[in-house]
Amino acid sequence: MILQPNEVLHQGAGLTMNHLLSMKDLNPETINSLIEEAELISKGKVPELRKKFTAAYLFFEPSTRTKMSFEMAAHRLGISLLNFVPEHSSSTKGESLYDTVKTLEAIGTDLVVIRHSEDAYYQDLKDRISIPLINAGDGKGEHPTQSLLDLLTIHQEFGKFNKLNIVIAGDIFHSRVARSNAYALSKLGANVYLSAPDIWQDDSLPYDYVSMDEAVEMSDVLMMLRVQHERHGSEMDWTKEEYHQMYGLTLEREKRMKDTSIIMHPAPVNRGVEIADELVECERSRIFKQISNGVFMRMAILYRLLEKGAI
Amino acid sequence: MILQPNEVLHQGAGLTMNHLLSMKDLNPETINSLIEEAELISKGKVPELRKKFTAAYLFFEPSTRTKMSFEMAAHRLGISLLNFVPEHSSSTKGESLYDTVKTLEAIGTDLVVIRHSEDAYYQDLKDRISIPLINAGDGKGEHPTQSLLDLLTIHQEFGKFNKLNIVIAGDIFHSRVARSNAYALSKLGANVYLSAPDIWQDDSLPYDYVSMDEAVEMSDVLMMLRVQHERHGSEMDWTKEEYHQMYGLTLEREKRMKDTSIIMHPAPVNRGVEIADELVECERSRIFKQISNGVFMRMAILYRLLEKGAI
Amino acid sequence: MILQPNEVLHQGAGLTMNHLLSMKDLNPETINSLIEEAELISKGKVPELRKKFTAAYLFFEPSTRTKMSFEMAAHRLGISLLNFVPEHSSSTKGESLYDTVKTLEAIGTDLVVIRHSEDAYYQDLKDRISIPLINAGDGKGEHPTQSLLDLLTIHQEFGKFNKLNIVIAGDIFHSRVARSNAYALSKLGANVYLSAPDIWQDDSLPYDYVSMDEAVEMSDVLMMLRVQHERHGSEMDWTKEEYHQMYGLTLEREKRMKDTSIIMHPAPVNRGVEIADELVECERSRIFKQISNGVFMRMAILYRLLEKGAI
Repeated sequence: MILQPNEVLHQGAGLTMNHLLSMKDLNPETINSLIEEAELISKGKVPELRKKFTAAYLFFEPSTRTKMSFEMAAHRLGISLLNFVPEHSSSTKGESLYDTVKTLEAIGTDLVVIRHSEDAYYQDLKDRISIPLINAGDGKGEHPTQSLLDLLTIHQEFGKFNKLNIVIAGDIFHSRVARSNAYALSKLGANVYLSAPDIWQDDSLPYDYVSMDEAVEMSDVLMMLRVQHERHGSEMDWTKEEYHQMYGLTLEREKRMKDTSIIMHPAPVNRGVEIADELVECERSRIFKQISNGVFMRMAILYRLLEKGAI
Repeated sequence: MILQPNEVLHQGAGLTMNHLLSMKDLNPETINSLIEEAELISKGKVPELRKKFTAAYLFFEPSTRTKMSFEMAAHRLGISLLNFVPEHSSSTKGESLYDTVKTLEAIGTDLVVIRHSEDAYYQDLKDRISIPLINAGDGKGEHPTQSLLDLLTIHQEFGKFNKLNIVIAGDIFHSRVARSNAYALSKLGANVYLSAPDIWQDDSLPYDYVSMDEAVEMSDVLMMLRVQHERHGSEMDWTKEEYHQMYGLTLEREKRMKDTSIIMHPAPVNRGVEIADELVECERSRIFKQISNGVFMRMAILYRLLEKGAI
Repeated sequence: MILQPNEVLHQGAGLTMNHLLSMKDLNPETINSLIEEAELISKGKVPELRKKFTAAYLFFEPSTRTKMSFEMAAHRLGISLLNFVPEHSSSTKGESLYDTVKTLEAIGTDLVVIRHSEDAYYQDLKDRISIPLINAGDGKGEHPTQSLLDLLTIHQEFGKFNKLNIVIAGDIFHSRVARSNAYALSKLGANVYLSAPDIWQDDSLPYDYVSMDEAVEMSDVLMMLRVQHERHGSEMDWTKEEYHQMYGLTLEREKRMKDTSIIMHPAPVNRGVEIADELVECERSRIFKQISNGVFMRMAILYRLLEKGAI
């Protein structure tokens, strides 16, 4: 049997890939080499691209952190950016995502980064375009660059993943960050647990659920997720304060965490909802460090895809 | 009689112009020299500007191709861009286009590119500003840079314009691309024909109409236009499928085209409406080549206006 | 008593400041040295920054002049810009301004410029961020960079401020420009007067009101303000023409101005409302010169804050 390129990619077989779409595609060696590259960059060893590349960032959903972080990464690497704005584009005239990306390719764009509300929007693109595509979030699917920066942050802290107890807590069902991180961390040997109100559990994921009270005591890494008010509506039948008390990281719960354990959150944070206001910038919080790491990791990814043509 | 500068310009008298507003203003020598310059650029001979210029692109209507193409052209020439966004500008406070452009001029902008929904919006500007203005589309008026990239594409294919049979087909009435191309191509010696449903014909244009069945058989170049759903409304009394069968380039019609003839379209394309999905990227389609050529032609135009102060 | 850093700053004590928030904070020496720096820049002496800085401009209200001017200033100094767009940001998910700015800081942004509809929005930020913040307009508060460019324009004209008669005329109540300029000019020794319809007077300001007929005859500098149609509504019970005749700078009134006196306006201008159309570009108008000066002054400010870490 001869594998189609596409199938190979999705087996995470360690072959080179010219896109970054899902954490499922990355084997541990690739993840570790990206972490190593990003750590070098964080220490000032910025690699040089052989020429002036141009990228386009297509954000069909709002973003501050991810977009600004990708922009900073481009500036630091000397990559020019096309200023694509969905509402001003031909997308408003009904142009398909495929035709938009092919257009950018024809214009000479060297790489695209896309965030889109549709799950796996990239299926229709990945084998039909000749430039690298980085998935910056697909619907309720994945968010691999967030996952990689989270892995970098954990690695900086513990120097390993094996046997770490990691609890991902909050709205698991709608979270692409949860999905990407759970896949990646268990592949790297960590013990992954989930914590969520019943209505936000996702039974398709093969991980055990624990309560928040268990979570704070057992976790080396407690990854809180954002309550996505803009996606929920009437389904959320707690007040913010009730949610905080039942499922949030309260001041009281934080006190029961292990000395060495850390708090993470992909942000933006709802202060006082999933996490107490005062904990966002507390000593064991790595929330702003994650943001800084995002730039280093994205520089590593952009560098790999542009310079070497593969992750 | 002494001509006013404005009258001279609009006679296409071959005098130098510091704006690019209408294909009516360009004589064949100027068009040919722009094509020559763009062809050199397409082969990698990028001219160097003597200093760091700054341009502002004012798009009051949506655009992917034209805006991204102008951005890429600026990047390649080392031109800085001001990020003007109409909805965030003082246009929302009622500032006139004239005052906006004068402001950009006072700030030190070296050139402006404008797309605007009003026909000939530039009449009020062109003699009152001291920096070059490139028209990137005025209402149902003209779209000269699209026309020039189309001419480049035809020239690459046939090496000439004289006696070529060119059919422009679709919504002639609302198309600024049709108008610009018809003017320019007939001036260059091509035989220009139009093809359109009755309601989209424009009787003020001095060209003959042919049916789509005639068009496919006679044309060396078949330029399809986009059905502009966003401009039409109830006036369009066919379904998309009916339009495709009656007026579109179907798979069946394409088979009757001459071996050497090519398909063009300014895009965005409505796949399955004015052109069959499968034909967009078929062998005789030059649709994505047009997009690539857009960057080269716009580099030539920007270079001329900034470096030499005239087209 | 030991002053908190914050108190020191707001006493205008002449100590170095790492933000530019209010004209109240600047003493005459600082203002004069900024004018001197901007004048050198206007003559082509552009200072060099020691490294490639990155800034983010956060405009939560529309702007052409201020934003474009800050962009041009950045280009000229070689500063990279992050393209922050409020409606595409996590602000739409409820993220606070503080968390947005901390995020930008964590990403590595070296400086932020903010315009916001809330008065003194910066109070919550200024002591909690470690990067310089420039206020580009806070609600009905202040607009210090506009004030500084106005001061530069006056200084270029008269070489001094002492004893100049300056009348600020129009919608004083809603104008942050009026407030910033009145503070600064009186501190610099000018005689400041205000002129406004009763409903737009602000009795908290310690300056005398004069009529427009008095204003044109007494002023060395007549600073007209924009009628902010978008802020007013039913409260404005004149037609535009009535306003023009009663409170505007008409052609007739301009004739009564002193030979040496000049007209200023922060723009955008309502031609025919607060000022006659023909006067906007008349000989004694400095309106477009103000705009050009804005780039020089903002270059001086950006340079000081980035290179020296203080104004």
